Amino acid sequence: MPDSAGRDILARIESPRDLDGLSLDELNQLAAEMRSAMCELVTQRSAHFASNLGVVELCLALHTTFDFSRDRLIWDTGHQVYPHKLITGRYRDFASIRTKGGLMGYPNPAESPYDLFMTGHAGASVATVLGLKSGDDLQPGQEDRRAVAVIGDGAFPSGIVYEALNNAGGLKKNLIVVLNDNKMSICPRVGGLAEYLDRLRMNRRYVEFKGDVARALDHVPLVGGPLERFLGQVKESLKAGLRGGMLFEGLGARYVGPVDGHNIAQLRKYLELVKDVEGPVLLHVVTEKGHGFQPATDDPVVYHAPAPFDRSLDGVVSFKSKSSRAFTHVASEALEDAMGRDERVTAITAAMCQGNKLEKIRDRFPRRFFDTGICESHAVAFAAGQAKSGLRPVVDIYSTFLQRSYDQVFQEVALQNLPVTFLLDRAGLTGPDGPTHHGAFDVSYQRTFPNMTVVAPGDASDLPLMLDYALQAPGPVSIRYPKAKAFTVSRATAPIETGRSEVLDWGTDVVLLAFGTLLAECVAAAQTLASEGLSVGVVNARFAKPLDTDVIRRALEEAEVVVTVEEAALAGGFGSAVAEYAVDAGLDTRRLVRLGIPDRFIEHGERGELLTELGLDAAGICRAVREASGRLDVVHASDRRVS
Amino acid sequence: MPDSAGRDILARIESPRDLDGLSLDELNQLAAEMRSAMCELVTQRSAHFASNLGVVELCLALHTTFDFSRDRLIWDTGHQVYPHKLITGRYRDFASIRTKGGLMGYPNPAESPYDLFMTGHAGASVATVLGLKSGDDLQPGQEDRRAVAVIGDGAFPSGIVYEALNNAGGLKKNLIVVLNDNKMSICPRVGGLAEYLDRLRMNRRYVEFKGDVARALDHVPLVGGPLERFLGQVKESLKAGLRGGMLFEGLGARYVGPVDGHNIAQLRKYLELVKDVEGPVLLHVVTEKGHGFQPATDDPVVYHAPAPFDRSLDGVVSFKSKSSRAFTHVASEALEDAMGRDERVTAITAAMCQGNKLEKIRDRFPRRFFDTGICESHAVAFAAGQAKSGLRPVVDIYSTFLQRSYDQVFQEVALQNLPVTFLLDRAGLTGPDGPTHHGAFDVSYQRTFPNMTVVAPGDASDLPLMLDYALQAPGPVSIRYPKAKAFTVSRATAPIETGRSEVLDWGTDVVLLAFGTLLAECVAAAQTLASEGLSVGVVNARFAKPLDTDVIRRALEEAEVVVTVEEAALAGGFGSAVAEYAVDAGLDTRRLVRLGIPDRFIEHGERGELLTELGLDAAGICRAVREASGRLDVVHASDRRVS
Repeated sequence: MPDSAGRDILARIESPRDLDGLSLDELNQLAAEMRSAMCELVTQRSAHFASNLGVVELCLALHTTFDFSRDRLIWDTGHQVYPHKLITGRYRDFASIRTKGGLMGYPNPAESPYDLFMTGHAGASVATVLGLKSGDDLQPGQEDRRAVAVIGDGAFPSGIVYEALNNAGGLKKNLIVVLNDNKMSICPRVGGLAEYLDRLRMNRRYVEFKGDVARALDHVPLVGGPLERFLGQVKESLKAGLRGGMLFEGLGARYVGPVDGHNIAQLRKYLELVKDVEGPVLLHVVTEKGHGFQPATDDPVVYHAPAPFDRSLDGVVSFKSKSSRAFTHVASEALEDAMGRDERVTAITAAMCQGNKLEKIRDRFPRRFFDTGICESHAVAFAAGQAKSGLRPVVDIYSTFLQRSYDQVFQEVALQNLPVTFLLDRAGLTGPDGPTHHGAFDVSYQRTFPNMTVVAPGDASDLPLMLDYALQAPGPVSIRYPKAKAFTVSRATAPIETGRSEVLDWGTDVVLLAFGTLLAECVAAAQTLASEGLSVGVVNARFAKPLDTDVIRRALEEAEVVVTVEEAALAGGFGSAVAEYAVDAGLDTRRLVRLGIPDRFIEHGERGELLTELGLDAAGICRAVREASGRLDVVHASDRRVS
Repeated sequence: MPDSAGRDILARIESPRDLDGLSLDELNQLAAEMRSAMCELVTQRSAHFASNLGVVELCLALHTTFDFSRDRLIWDTGHQVYPHKLITGRYRDFASIRTKGGLMGYPNPAESPYDLFMTGHAGASVATVLGLKSGDDLQPGQEDRRAVAVIGDGAFPSGIVYEALNNAGGLKKNLIVVLNDNKMSICPRVGGLAEYLDRLRMNRRYVEFKGDVARALDHVPLVGGPLERFLGQVKESLKAGLRGGMLFEGLGARYVGPVDGHNIAQLRKYLELVKDVEGPVLLHVVTEKGHGFQPATDDPVVYHAPAPFDRSLDGVVSFKSKSSRAFTHVASEALEDAMGRDERVTAITAAMCQGNKLEKIRDRFPRRFFDTGICESHAVAFAAGQAKSGLRPVVDIYSTFLQRSYDQVFQEVALQNLPVTFLLDRAGLTGPDGPTHHGAFDVSYQRTFPNMTVVAPGDASDLPLMLDYALQAPGPVSIRYPKAKAFTVSRATAPIETGRSEVLDWGTDVVLLAFGTLLAECVAAAQTLASEGLSVGVVNARFAKPLDTDVIRRALEEAEVVVTVEEAALAGGFGSAVAEYAVDAGLDTRRLVRLGIPDRFIEHGERGELLTELGLDAAGICRAVREASGRLDVVHASDRRVS
């Protein structure tokens, strides 16, 4: 019986085993119902959409060919996991996805045994699946468990994929890598087998060197025929995909494909074919991002994770909310401005041209805009090379993804003391994407590197000033800002000076030291506390490294309570840096309170909800001040008793 | 005129331009003199040897084909830079290499404009050279500067190489990547063009699918002939190398080679050939590790960085010093023991089988030993997969190289809370290798991740206990220990309990909290201080996370001075964790002193020298205690005045 949404089959699927009796027609109907459920969802809220529409048939073919209650399946990245969720017992909760307390928008082992790894960062699937397979093979009775990684062509250029393929080729483990090629790779697609052979004939001296082979391939018609036909076929449909094929074969795995990713029968045929092949195999599946929903296939970039929209009867889509001006916009406008003024400034992104709002920069400065694809390690080392040549590269990247360049920030940038600027977007709590996407750790690790300068704007007016500051600095500077609506705190903005904070107000009872845009919450908290009769100061700290030690010292010496406030990990973050300084300077730290992200992975939810939960809004700051005051009264009383 | 060592030509080379007038015979004589200089060096001290013997001719060919005062050259990794140093004005200082204040054993921009990047970690060269080239191309008058990366076949599997090649293919920049293939790749070598075509014919159903092509290649003699000859040639000499070739061509660059890396004339011919080729090109150079010194070519593993040795007239080599038992040995023996007891324990290394002393484990447990090559990102994600399957993988890796897996420690291990054990060898100051190899930052970043447990043995007896503890733990545990001779501190060793330190002695004047093997220095310092009449306690902290808050609180409440001592960065390290706790708990931190690695990159030198310089030996600890006591007297006096 159809459910209220008219979904006859989907309503009956409690687990993948319920798919077993379905005919091909029924599976196709189910695919339509799954698409309808996803379309319904995105009229409610922003969610990953086009990629999920693209993998419906692949998901059904996988679950009807394998038994993933025993076999191993990793979705990489996990944002294409919605169809998988719909048929693994989570259809009823599906409407809750990406809401606080609801389903996660990525695989989540806590939700289902069918989710093995939380995969928000790209590329690790081949490595983890190889680990699973090698682990199963070492355990008696587990060797029959098959291992499948589904990896998008966007994730495929990540270096770890190559490392894992190389290792898989060496270990000769049975391993199925499904390359989900939705032709929306963000990396420039070059090369391929066709170009490979073309190039072999290109250079005259090269031809002399490898003359026999080249001539044979050029001139022997019997081979030229089918080979050319083969290459023709490749060229037409899958030029770029075969590059992956070559790599894969070169690394010691078999390449099978291409397969139409929207033809369940063909998918199942080829999955059966590769199911028990010895050694690693890559199955190249071609899907269409947005498949089944015309506006999304027409513009898969917009529909990657669209704002909620309505669709009228004539098919016209109207988005419910226009995105308001965010810190991301402020940053990209400041960068565009800097690039207009200074020819040395370049913009480097790792596949986040849209996310970082860099389209205008890409179009206006094509020679100085570089998209490396999801290759953050390379992006940072590449920037270091540019800096060494005399340019002023700006690496514009999400905080959480810069983690993938930790070692390049260390060796190529900080150790060489090169003037690379980092724009760390989405630093802090990013919201509905959850723990893989929160940018909690950047302050903690960046400030440990010698030569690094670590800053955060207190508001939108600080951000362009800080970018200008960074572009004049002799060494690397990192600028972090949240995924949040831009605002300004009205004041006579002071210029950015190394290691200098901005004192908005001074207070003798309380000083709030804000590192970053929680400055606004501090200002609000200060108003509340002032209305309760306290003398409250607010400082826009600006620098986590180097610290404004003068202001910190003064605060700890003059105020009863000093609170550090940041949207970053308490372990090692700005408050930790303040604590280190205060301890080393021999200051009395009993009046120091640190607010920030605690030592646990924070779930998904709206950023505002999460900030409230963690006590990082104005109310939470007020609470912390009152508690500290109470605690201090006790301390002071005890001090008096002692003395 | 020959110098005192009889080196006629080398003594005259002040810069690469002095090579210009030399005939081929003279260059070959120079090569011999350079080898003699390197042989002389390694009779004095441990240094990278075999790889440097292998690149002498390549280095001369590069410097006589290019002008690296303008052209760009990166050696990757940098330990093959000795010949380059010898001919770029550093021959006279060559004997000082790897000593404190002397030349660095890696490229060092502070030494010479011919050194562009300090490259101790593998694989970034292609990215940095691409950055340099793209930077030069954007600056008027700089477009003629050529860009060359020399990358060893050991470094080549690093993921960042693939990321950079992919980007280079997209950007179509003129770029020369010299693959220095010394056939000593640490990664298993599989695949290759020959196997690729073999596999194409292997699977019957696969043949049906691509029948035309496979049949053509199988049966057409006109093609079969030269193609087979081509493949034969490939097979014989360079099976693995061509795999790299395929990758490279697949990624959009040209492949040229193989070239005999010890034939200067041939090298120059091919370097000239590729010098002005449009777009990226890979030149495959085959060298022999240890070339010119028979014992080293016979055993390039031992001669990679041998202990100092003498060579008698009959050619027999005698090593001057046998390496004493180090913490590395203690760790590998404990691991071997654990693997003997528990079938679930596996050992994973990233090309450091020799460095981590895992040869015995490799031989005894071949199925449970995994060498991923220099692919740390993969190694950690692979371990996570094994842990998920029910195994207890141990990732045995140098602290500095685990930085390359920061994001996998975050997402694949900590976020999933999987029981992966990290054995972090060479944590702290590693000595002559210098700043790229010191393991300063592991505590700072690992403790920021939820679910992580971070421990360090106080001595050799702690290490096996900690490994056993880790192998029983429900989540990830990281164990750090230095590159140092193993020792034990005699005491009744307490069992390892989560978050519990080991109190060796208690003191009311001073408590020394040692995290790691500086415990021995603390014990020595305590003896000295006790002889001065102070009551001194020593605590083997063991845990940086979770902290033993009971003991820390008691110390801060009872002792006049509390000192944290660690061989890790002060920013974010153990002392920082103690400071955070003390501040958050409202304790008086004015008696807290933190000793550790300061906020600058530490040069090379013997570990003992560096520890002394940084005040991390017993004398330095005593000094710090005395200074703190003096400071506290002032504080107490001022407190008395205030109250």
